[in-house]
Amino acid sequence: MVVGGDAGSMSAASQARRRLGREDLSIIAFERGPYTSFSACGIPYFVGGVVRPFQSLIARTPEQFRSAYDIDARTGHEVLDIDLDRRSVHVRSDAGQAWEGFDYLVIGTGAVPVRLDLPGADARGIFGVQTLPDGLAVDRYIGEFAPQRAVVVGGGYIGLEMAEAFKQRGLSVALIERSEQPMGTLDPDMGALVADAMRALDIEVLTNEAVAGFETTGGRVAGVVTKERTLRAEIVAFGIGVRPNTDLASAAGLVVGESGAIAVDRRMRTAAEGVYSAGDCAEKWHRVARRPVAIALGTHANKEGRIAGINVSGGYATFPGVIGTAVSKICGAEVARTGLNESEAKRAGFDALGVTVDSTTRAGYFPGARPIKVKVVAERGSGALLGAQIVGEEGAAKRIDVLATAVWNEMSVDELINVDLSYAPPFSPLWDPVLAAARRAWQAVEQGR
Amino acid sequence: MVVGGDAGSMSAASQARRRLGREDLSIIAFERGPYTSFSACGIPYFVGGVVRPFQSLIARTPEQFRSAYDIDARTGHEVLDIDLDRRSVHVRSDAGQAWEGFDYLVIGTGAVPVRLDLPGADARGIFGVQTLPDGLAVDRYIGEFAPQRAVVVGGGYIGLEMAEAFKQRGLSVALIERSEQPMGTLDPDMGALVADAMRALDIEVLTNEAVAGFETTGGRVAGVVTKERTLRAEIVAFGIGVRPNTDLASAAGLVVGESGAIAVDRRMRTAAEGVYSAGDCAEKWHRVARRPVAIALGTHANKEGRIAGINVSGGYATFPGVIGTAVSKICGAEVARTGLNESEAKRAGFDALGVTVDSTTRAGYFPGARPIKVKVVAERGSGALLGAQIVGEEGAAKRIDVLATAVWNEMSVDELINVDLSYAPPFSPLWDPVLAAARRAWQAVEQGR
Repeated sequence: MVVGGDAGSMSAASQARRRLGREDLSIIAFERGPYTSFSACGIPYFVGGVVRPFQSLIARTPEQFRSAYDIDARTGHEVLDIDLDRRSVHVRSDAGQAWEGFDYLVIGTGAVPVRLDLPGADARGIFGVQTLPDGLAVDRYIGEFAPQRAVVVGGGYIGLEMAEAFKQRGLSVALIERSEQPMGTLDPDMGALVADAMRALDIEVLTNEAVAGFETTGGRVAGVVTKERTLRAEIVAFGIGVRPNTDLASAAGLVVGESGAIAVDRRMRTAAEGVYSAGDCAEKWHRVARRPVAIALGTHANKEGRIAGINVSGGYATFPGVIGTAVSKICGAEVARTGLNESEAKRAGFDALGVTVDSTTRAGYFPGARPIKVKVVAERGSGALLGAQIVGEEGAAKRIDVLATAVWNEMSVDELINVDLSYAPPFSPLWDPVLAAARRAWQAVEQGR
Repeated sequence: MVVGGDAGSMSAASQARRRLGREDLSIIAFERGPYTSFSACGIPYFVGGVVRPFQSLIARTPEQFRSAYDIDARTGHEVLDIDLDRRSVHVRSDAGQAWEGFDYLVIGTGAVPVRLDLPGADARGIFGVQTLPDGLAVDRYIGEFAPQRAVVVGGGYIGLEMAEAFKQRGLSVALIERSEQPMGTLDPDMGALVADAMRALDIEVLTNEAVAGFETTGGRVAGVVTKERTLRAEIVAFGIGVRPNTDLASAAGLVVGESGAIAVDRRMRTAAEGVYSAGDCAEKWHRVARRPVAIALGTHANKEGRIAGINVSGGYATFPGVIGTAVSKICGAEVARTGLNESEAKRAGFDALGVTVDSTTRAGYFPGARPIKVKVVAERGSGALLGAQIVGEEGAAKRIDVLATAVWNEMSVDELINVDLSYAPPFSPLWDPVLAAARRAWQAVEQGR
């Protein structure tokens, strides 16, 4: 049985089904919302009108789970309680309430947007954006009230993507970020480039500014109040991140770790026998920081679900953890990161240095060559590659995967210099920007000796 | 002293200069041609008219080497002999001939196109394409004689790129390839996709067909003769690869290895004290095949030159070898490979399997998602990743670098599945094609147990 109808839980269910037929395992999935397996990452693109209709964000419907995987996927079914002693869950649906027993349970309750508990925060027109219904609600609100002015509170990935989406819908947009730069998972020098790209598209970016409350008119949001000013706002989206949705798990007595997510071992097992967790609600091991973290990302959820599904169905598989890789496209800027940034590296106890290199995505003389800036964070002394960040234009960001694979394998920047990466003028300068950054970092390491 | 004015030798010279000033090391470079440090890989794009003027292919002129690096770069100087006992080289230039002594020597004589010794092969209008003067000669020939019909002999990278270049110049083009498919560094199933892309642009691709000779008119090429037919040809380019230019080194008594290139150790030292070699003329260690190979590629030349330059100037650095990574863009198809293909793997003694996965470069629902096919070659039993090939459209090929980094680190396909690669809808499906291919390969490995 799985709780939650999205990436983590449904990947577990599908993987278990691939290994065991109906006669060996019956699978029920409860999803409180109306949809299964939707792309949460695609929601800003739906709101922006880039991806339509919303159904294209749905990877598999309940009917598809039923017919292709023999999984009894029940939407509109909210799990209210998990009773670990009786090994059953309390489910509410339109048909009423019932207890359903399980032998194995996979908890995939996902994440919920962080919202600030501020005056006026309950007004209509203020949205957290995490689920497909959230995205539909934003879209409907724009259609119904034709807001002219949007304010996004918080400069996380979803916040920046929503700012662009509002812009694409023709609204004027302001972004308010509490810290020095938006995209706080980047170092400020790289985040500043993202802010520049947004400003170039006429999005107002206000930094070092905190939201104090909201003005409302007739129950609808009308303004965002900060210490410095009041911004007119006819629609507001929160982009300050999400937190693991652990309410059910906590209430059932499962351990929630220091990261705020459900504690799991490397086989995705919780502390309770036969109870697994996967996806945004489950804690992940950060291989470089060497501590558990909560990171909400579909790609982790899918991988963890696959691992849980193998283990639930009698196999053996372990999830090796994450290194904080992420990518986004914001107002023409491609942005990516992996491993630790400078401040994260220091917090993790490393004596770290950061170097940046400016290069181009193709040979400098080749048509379509675009700027790319690569920042590499390395351990002083050893030269161990700790992390990297990329901001650039088309063709820049996916290069982060090379750096991610290098971080994953605990390479030093010195080793990375000589890796046999591909080269041809339409794809790279002779020294790929990744290798050029490794060279620069190794120079800095050597000079520091 | 360095012999050869291109990537390998001049990287060595520049690197040595960065470490030692003029007072500690004087550097002379002899280049027989008129240019230094040009992008050989860019020549087809110059011929095709994509990159102009030809000067943009020159990374650094002799003047720039002199002013920025204090390197006495002498073009039009051909080294005729290396005397290892007298530690001097015999040089010919417009000014006459002379012997010049050296303490250290870096041989960077590069590669020369393989040409077939066939009847008529000396006719005008038949070109090997390796140096910038070669490219200029092709360009001039097109300008002077306005050929309507080009034939490319051999389907290597340069051959395919030249076929496209002739097409871009408005010629009708045929490609003759002796083996089953063009792009013989790919497995035939992947090479067939490249042939398809060429045919889609109306390039005639003839496979399993060998050239027997050339028809000529007035000393100029008029046709290409095979056993099957005679093809009209007013211009012909050879694309059957290059061979290391080892004439000078052999004559001097240096060891030429089984690969046909100059044997060097991991510090890029030849058998003779103080004599180094770097670039296309130098042998490379293939880390997966575990044997020395000759591969002509600017990126290796630059890395090897850097290593040679560090060692020449009193430092210590080793070149860890290559894994056969390559990338090209052919008629809208992006093509890449790394490690071993299926037949190479078998030749290297592996019991190998190959699997292919079809995916998209972005989330399937995202505008601009393009097809990508990834082939993974893995060792049966262990699941060790041995190599990979990619054929796809825009955004496909550079993903080979992730696979290259994984091959480099001797990962298994099972490990690769869980690597934390970046995901967002504009950049990748939830399972990046690379990870999807690793999953498929691991399934095949497990099924074979």
